[in-house]
Amino acid sequence: MSGFWDEQPELASRLEEVKRAIRERAHSDDNDVEASVGQLLESNGKMLRPAFVILASQFGAPDEDRVTRIAAAVEMLHMATLAHDDIIDSAAFRRGVATLQAARGPRTAVLVGDWLFASCFTMIADFAAAENSRGLSQIVARICGSEVSQSTDRHKVSNSVRRYLRRIAGKTAALFALSFHVGAHESGCGPELCSQLRRLGYNLGMGFQIIDDILDFEGFESNTGKPMGQDLVEGIYTLPTILALKNDDGRLRSELARRPRSRRALSRTVALIRERGGMEGAHGMAQRYTGRSLREISRLPCGQPRTVLEMVAQKLLHRNR
Amino acid sequence: MSGFWDEQPELASRLEEVKRAIRERAHSDDNDVEASVGQLLESNGKMLRPAFVILASQFGAPDEDRVTRIAAAVEMLHMATLAHDDIIDSAAFRRGVATLQAARGPRTAVLVGDWLFASCFTMIADFAAAENSRGLSQIVARICGSEVSQSTDRHKVSNSVRRYLRRIAGKTAALFALSFHVGAHESGCGPELCSQLRRLGYNLGMGFQIIDDILDFEGFESNTGKPMGQDLVEGIYTLPTILALKNDDGRLRSELARRPRSRRALSRTVALIRERGGMEGAHGMAQRYTGRSLREISRLPCGQPRTVLEMVAQKLLHRNR
Repeated sequence: MSGFWDEQPELASRLEEVKRAIRERAHSDDNDVEASVGQLLESNGKMLRPAFVILASQFGAPDEDRVTRIAAAVEMLHMATLAHDDIIDSAAFRRGVATLQAARGPRTAVLVGDWLFASCFTMIADFAAAENSRGLSQIVARICGSEVSQSTDRHKVSNSVRRYLRRIAGKTAALFALSFHVGAHESGCGPELCSQLRRLGYNLGMGFQIIDDILDFEGFESNTGKPMGQDLVEGIYTLPTILALKNDDGRLRSELARRPRSRRALSRTVALIRERGGMEGAHGMAQRYTGRSLREISRLPCGQPRTVLEMVAQKLLHRNR
Repeated sequence: MSGFWDEQPELASRLEEVKRAIRERAHSDDNDVEASVGQLLESNGKMLRPAFVILASQFGAPDEDRVTRIAAAVEMLHMATLAHDDIIDSAAFRRGVATLQAARGPRTAVLVGDWLFASCFTMIADFAAAENSRGLSQIVARICGSEVSQSTDRHKVSNSVRRYLRRIAGKTAALFALSFHVGAHESGCGPELCSQLRRLGYNLGMGFQIIDDILDFEGFESNTGKPMGQDLVEGIYTLPTILALKNDDGRLRSELARRPRSRRALSRTVALIRERGGMEGAHGMAQRYTGRSLREISRLPCGQPRTVLEMVAQKLLHRNR
């Protein structure tokens, strides 16, 4: 898990249990499913969403085994979206590891993604309250809707900040919020605390996704595992680009119209976006969302889970991969 | 709906309501989702699964509006699998209409499929009992598992009849069975009647899929909307091939090893399969399953729904598309 949880050995070992639960679930099924899920688990990153389920549950009286299953379901949902995203982006690598669709073909990637979706729903139906089961399917519909709109918006220089924020809310923040909510709800936290944790997750998710989009410009292959400027190549204009376009003297617009693909053209475009304040503006917004999540955190009951959440929020804001 | 329900105007109009419910659901979301779902609805076939939900519900005391939503959810699940199947098969046409992945690209087909899955789960969570919601996700996991194993089994001449039957049970019969079950269960039928209708659905589904696989050999583009022998080209060996291989003198095996693709090679292979009794044997098994479903039907309470089901079972066995 890329060392992200090194300072939290207890949480790290809980996350290993989550992985085990996912492997077990895949084991009872098909050989090919098992191998593919194993491959996805190897390349999976920080496991933030299951960690949020577990951390949120610690504000109540959790049944650890049940929480592990629910956390596994949430991670499986995330893995499903990654498997399908990689088909959509025709991506060959993710975090430096070959993607499922590159290694085993889009056929397997589609099916394994579907299998993960379905298994996630089965696990949630088996282990969580009906209300959370419904919440989960609504989130999935929303994630898909956001991805479709991201796809529709490609190469449009008229994208508004508002539309971008709505998109990342659906794509990322909603699942962050849900992870916190189910963890808290399933371990008996009251409605007040649940909604506080949900808000925390939402703001953390917004900040996280903005940083992710900034890293697409700044990151290098060794860090994010993706080539630089991939979003630009795909015609996906994220916050830095949208903000820079607001201050554009026409040069950025015409660079984008040429659909930069070469390393040189991309560097020129990224330099323009930076010059026009795109990076700075986006960083500012990420900071604002993270600030809101830190305020929510500071209002939580004292203790270990709160301390860990503070650390996570800071770490996510200042990460470089 | 390809005239299949012409003699059942009442049911046909209920199925139009089901379509409307699906369109409505898609309308509240993204433009692109709406257009894609509209396109899928245009090319959708007999709408058997929602018809089964409605027919089964008529053995109890149905709340028609709720049953329509549940029927819509079941059809959306089926549409999702079709959208993803077409990516997996790189299919350009289905029932003579351009597939989503051909018309709008695999990107949209993946996403719209996911959206349909998710919306199906949301609708079921909103309108059906928790038990049926769980049943549905288990079915989806099973459908995906079967598709994965179909994919793993490609070009293997060692496939057994048993493995084939397990595969089509997961791929088709399980959803037929569930359609009958939810319709009956949601309109208050007792456990005895529910399980009778479920068995009926299972056997009908097995017979249906075997006929479908036979039609892949016999059908012509104008009928099934797919080129002949598509399964063979893909290396998917269905019942006629598996049965013929049992009586093979070595010629069929060597034809298959050459991976027939041209029209001529395919005709030769199909002729061999027929000569070795593959078609006849498969027809016999389809008849046996349909016979079982007819026996279940004959034990149902008398009335209009039973009469319609008898007609459907016969029509599905003797169809040529």
